[in-house]
Amino acid sequence: MNFADYMKEQKGRIDSRLKTLLQTDVPQFSQLYKAMNYSLLAGGKRIRPILLLATLEALGKDSEPYIDLACALECVHSYSLIHDDLPAMDDDDLRRGKPTNHVVFGEGTAILAGDGLLTYAFELMAAQTHIDAAKLARCIAIFAHAAGPAGMVGGQAFDLASEGNTSIGREGLELLHYSKTGIIFKAAIELAAVLGDAGEAQKKALDTYAFYMGLTFQITDDILDVVGDEASLGKPVGSDAKNDKATYVTIFSLDEARRMAEEAAEKATAAVEPLGPKAWFLRDLVSYMLVRTK
Amino acid sequence: MNFADYMKEQKGRIDSRLKTLLQTDVPQFSQLYKAMNYSLLAGGKRIRPILLLATLEALGKDSEPYIDLACALECVHSYSLIHDDLPAMDDDDLRRGKPTNHVVFGEGTAILAGDGLLTYAFELMAAQTHIDAAKLARCIAIFAHAAGPAGMVGGQAFDLASEGNTSIGREGLELLHYSKTGIIFKAAIELAAVLGDAGEAQKKALDTYAFYMGLTFQITDDILDVVGDEASLGKPVGSDAKNDKATYVTIFSLDEARRMAEEAAEKATAAVEPLGPKAWFLRDLVSYMLVRTK
Repeated sequence: MNFADYMKEQKGRIDSRLKTLLQTDVPQFSQLYKAMNYSLLAGGKRIRPILLLATLEALGKDSEPYIDLACALECVHSYSLIHDDLPAMDDDDLRRGKPTNHVVFGEGTAILAGDGLLTYAFELMAAQTHIDAAKLARCIAIFAHAAGPAGMVGGQAFDLASEGNTSIGREGLELLHYSKTGIIFKAAIELAAVLGDAGEAQKKALDTYAFYMGLTFQITDDILDVVGDEASLGKPVGSDAKNDKATYVTIFSLDEARRMAEEAAEKATAAVEPLGPKAWFLRDLVSYMLVRTK
Repeated sequence: MNFADYMKEQKGRIDSRLKTLLQTDVPQFSQLYKAMNYSLLAGGKRIRPILLLATLEALGKDSEPYIDLACALECVHSYSLIHDDLPAMDDDDLRRGKPTNHVVFGEGTAILAGDGLLTYAFELMAAQTHIDAAKLARCIAIFAHAAGPAGMVGGQAFDLASEGNTSIGREGLELLHYSKTGIIFKAAIELAAVLGDAGEAQKKALDTYAFYMGLTFQITDDILDVVGDEASLGKPVGSDAKNDKATYVTIFSLDEARRMAEEAAEKATAAVEPLGPKAWFLRDLVSYMLVRTK
């Protein structure tokens, strides 16, 4: 199977499952569920859940039993976007070509939709009783750590505090990106390593891959904000420059950022070489990141 | 031991442990941690964690191994207060006699402090590797369900939507209170039942207790908003009437609400009679609710 077909097939599996998850028969809660589903089902590349499933497959495992865990990762991603877009945060009106959650449902409901998606993700994870309970608890601990104050929430707080401050430097920028995004990619892959009984060498390979894959994603994300097409991206371009955000492009240069992305992609690819042919998708994913337009 | 001493001792155990939990050595995250600790360590009765510990003791178990689980419950409670107080929600400036989180740290950081506490709670729960993993996963699923969109978040969304609408009726009011507060009390007790290997009869008794105890709490809370003393409560009284909120006092009357609270307290007390002397605290707790001033 080629890369595009694989992405499409996995995204299809995830989207189908996501559609069935958040339902309520309590009329007083229906607006909240509408708001959660509005953002959760608004599309998106589904990279985090696909990473979990693809890494399991790279380890020679059947990914089918883990589809709900993958969906839980997407619920957390969706919550983070809703909260990031709020007026008190990045104040964005457009996401994936659609009005953001608070624009449609109001700020209060948008905050609650985020809270609801985040909490539901842990309910969904913990309910996977067909998975070995010790492994499941470990997965929840890893993922909550990555998404929590020491990870993604910390990164967003740092981002909020450093807006308009382009002097955070390379170290600051790397911390920002790693904690906002990279750590979640890494957690998705680590979950697969736990569930797929990866050996020590495999774990180490996947860890290195995760780090450089995340870096590739971030640098290319910063590049897209400068050279991307608003229609493909579904969000305004140039917003980083407008908001005086430190990015790989503003701190270095467009050319240098491109070079750094290529270098990170090479390191990611090399890391999973030992995993053999089954890991083809992980390698193709970083190549795709270098050429993606959205 | 008498009721007041027991509450004080348990609160002391919980407060000591809470103080040690949220620490960071990442300077860029320190403001977020400060904001989380500001609310988490601002006092409060610690009823939810005490309920978990006391129910375990009522079942004849040592509560010591479960102190971190109890703290996780308080982290979730603290997050819910931070988000409830936000301008887009109840817009409260004062909580427990201190300026609310967003007043001190700004709205963006307050939203993230809530997100951080919520996510951290699940990390802390999942990290309790000394607890049987299957029981732990069950506890996480129960608690996330209670705190999530089908429970507390749903209740808050309903509350937000029904502000200024006193016509939600008794049924609406009961749904509101049960989902905002009662379901969390019930979950704390259910967790203890799971961890303490409660038998079927014990489980049923505790379930009934939890329902009526939660109801007693809610009705007395509504009464306190009318007759309470601002200094003891640490928050303005009369805010329900000001916000046109449906409460047990506005829908019924002060006298009728008092009668209803007493009836609920009696039912709660009777439910745990079969648990014997060890369950003394659970019985005293509902008596205390009837006379509490804060």
